[in-house]
Amino acid sequence: MIEACICTIGDEILIGQIVDTNSAYISKELNKMGIKVSSIISIGDNIQEIINTLADVTEKYPIVITTGGLGPTKDDITKNALLILSGSDEMYLDNEQLGVIKDICTKRGIELSDLNRDQALVPKSCSVLINRKGTAPGMFFKISSRNSLLFSLPGVPYEMEALMPKVSELIEKNIKTEQIIHKTIVTFGVAESMLATILNDWESSLPPQIKLAYLPNPAIGIRLRMSVYGGDKSNAIALINRYTNELYGLLGDIIYGESDDTLESTLFKSLINESKSLSVAESCTGGRISSILTSISGSSQIFKGGAVVYSNESKVAILGVNSKIIEDYGAVSKECAEEMAIKAREVFKTDYAISATGVAGPTGGTAEKPVGTIWIAVAGEGFVLSKKNVFTGDREINTIRFSSEALNFLRLVLKRS
Amino acid sequence: MIEACICTIGDEILIGQIVDTNSAYISKELNKMGIKVSSIISIGDNIQEIINTLADVTEKYPIVITTGGLGPTKDDITKNALLILSGSDEMYLDNEQLGVIKDICTKRGIELSDLNRDQALVPKSCSVLINRKGTAPGMFFKISSRNSLLFSLPGVPYEMEALMPKVSELIEKNIKTEQIIHKTIVTFGVAESMLATILNDWESSLPPQIKLAYLPNPAIGIRLRMSVYGGDKSNAIALINRYTNELYGLLGDIIYGESDDTLESTLFKSLINESKSLSVAESCTGGRISSILTSISGSSQIFKGGAVVYSNESKVAILGVNSKIIEDYGAVSKECAEEMAIKAREVFKTDYAISATGVAGPTGGTAEKPVGTIWIAVAGEGFVLSKKNVFTGDREINTIRFSSEALNFLRLVLKRS
Repeated sequence: MIEACICTIGDEILIGQIVDTNSAYISKELNKMGIKVSSIISIGDNIQEIINTLADVTEKYPIVITTGGLGPTKDDITKNALLILSGSDEMYLDNEQLGVIKDICTKRGIELSDLNRDQALVPKSCSVLINRKGTAPGMFFKISSRNSLLFSLPGVPYEMEALMPKVSELIEKNIKTEQIIHKTIVTFGVAESMLATILNDWESSLPPQIKLAYLPNPAIGIRLRMSVYGGDKSNAIALINRYTNELYGLLGDIIYGESDDTLESTLFKSLINESKSLSVAESCTGGRISSILTSISGSSQIFKGGAVVYSNESKVAILGVNSKIIEDYGAVSKECAEEMAIKAREVFKTDYAISATGVAGPTGGTAEKPVGTIWIAVAGEGFVLSKKNVFTGDREINTIRFSSEALNFLRLVLKRS
Repeated sequence: MIEACICTIGDEILIGQIVDTNSAYISKELNKMGIKVSSIISIGDNIQEIINTLADVTEKYPIVITTGGLGPTKDDITKNALLILSGSDEMYLDNEQLGVIKDICTKRGIELSDLNRDQALVPKSCSVLINRKGTAPGMFFKISSRNSLLFSLPGVPYEMEALMPKVSELIEKNIKTEQIIHKTIVTFGVAESMLATILNDWESSLPPQIKLAYLPNPAIGIRLRMSVYGGDKSNAIALINRYTNELYGLLGDIIYGESDDTLESTLFKSLINESKSLSVAESCTGGRISSILTSISGSSQIFKGGAVVYSNESKVAILGVNSKIIEDYGAVSKECAEEMAIKAREVFKTDYAISATGVAGPTGGTAEKPVGTIWIAVAGEGFVLSKKNVFTGDREINTIRFSSEALNFLRLVLKRS
């Protein structure tokens, strides 16, 4: 199996000022091509350290991808390190990238500075990967003395992502890759240890070629990933399909999707299929449920609007919640959640409405309604259903779980109706 | 300077299924103690690879922190690797952790399984770091043959975070650390290259001890970080203070905060100080602005509610926007943004209201109002102000920028009023 190494460059990673999301993206893309990422290394903005590390990893791995350190400012020195490493002795101005830089400056209404222009300077020994989303071009070097392909990509995630198809193309042109078959099943609503208990016998029956992993995520649920490396492709696929079918039999509607499916993408597909619309009334989730739903392009086809009713007054004023319900049962109650869903459905004139009201924390909990308590409800034509959960996370995690529980509740209601 | 290495363990990182946020958190915490993270390495769930890598890095670094691989399922094998590496020959059941595990199961209403119970098993050679947020305990080993401190923490971020104070305490007890002085200034509203042009002369005047870095983030703005490593502490502080003051002089109200300040935390502080309340009317940002504001604990003191008016009908029905404005000028217009802010302020009865209406993309753009166009408005007692921006990102980035622009606009309005 072809192995690769990712090097992320920048003091900001080592001092923890930014989270490296690029490695995950790049790993995923390489994986699709049957390339195994064996190592991810983060190093600082130090020219000697960059040169040493890249010299080392280009010896060990046939593919090395770096991100970061290509910005216009003085702390960005990856390009100089690459100039030295590649044995190049000079830079040239790439006119195509310069054109992009000029366009971006014009669009943003800023003047082209020397710093901007210098971003189009690249070592003579590289092939330029034109960056159309930003000012720093990507670079591709064949380090022939080491038989290694070295790619340098900008650190800004969406600029890097836009260059990855070109990187894949160049890798495929230069290296024969092997296969990896992954299959991921996405579940929601059952804790990891309970899922493992349910699957214990099944897991023991898995043949040694299949590697199984549990990947819990508070927003998505637990993803179960089966992987087969190498071997005969059609056998691997047949094997994975067989065990996937068994999983569906064991888990039923705990499973909501496959691969990159999320609760929101799954809901979006069901609602689009049935031409149904949706609205949201949320309190403790503070806009997160609406925000998740609208993260999907085209969501306006199903999502009509949401009310973030953070105070009791706004629940009454915006949604027309009966204030007596809040007085009698409190804002965090079955009755209030149901009323919020019913009223949201009326106000936004939608087929369904979801509501969520709870205590995200860290303050506001009581013995009866501790931090982590959430009431959610779904209203539809002629019905309203509700449920309560209690979680044990902090404010951020609780808000994520509350939102996903609400989306999952609607999913189950749609499925069973 | 004391150096440390972070090892994150799990195939899910190498195949890109999850983003490693733990390293950033841990780096930040170590940095505060004057420890430099020199390397972050991600490796897979392979027992031999874990043992080899940890044997290697505990030789090189006096402090090694691992995360991940401690879950209840069969793919989690870090504990076995540590058992072998530490030369321990057996495990014991830690009763305190078992108590926590039992409590969590009871709270979640699930039965204690063998898998749950086994999470309280730890190598005899370690000190247990009790995990009160989850079932997998952290572990601390003194690898005396190598003079290295090795910490193994759970991979779930908020469980790991809860254990870091204990890790810091143990490091301080065992190693004498050196100082790093960082100072971070947070700016918003000026692009990186333009900021670099403004600061060019100032940057050239910086003494060699000060290392400057630009850290752009679409939600936060650009953070400027000055660092001084080692040397005399009071000199370092005096030096950083002097150049910080110069920065304030050069950048004025482009600067909105320091350290971990965000637009929302800055706004929260100003509004709390003035006892003012806020509401939001948002269209293309889909709930994100409300969600950002409510991410702050205590936000109910200032934030009363938000309307996510994703359709034209909901703008009219929920906020009472005059439908003629939408007909005459379109939903993405100065007029509509201003009307949305005015109406939100009325409906939610708040001192201020922010509105945002635009085209996040990828579809919906026109020649006149291309993808990336946003109109934002702020309404207060007797006034409404608005502004337009055009960004060039994808849907996700545009939504982030739109939201931050809206928050920043309110910040500037508050500052100048």
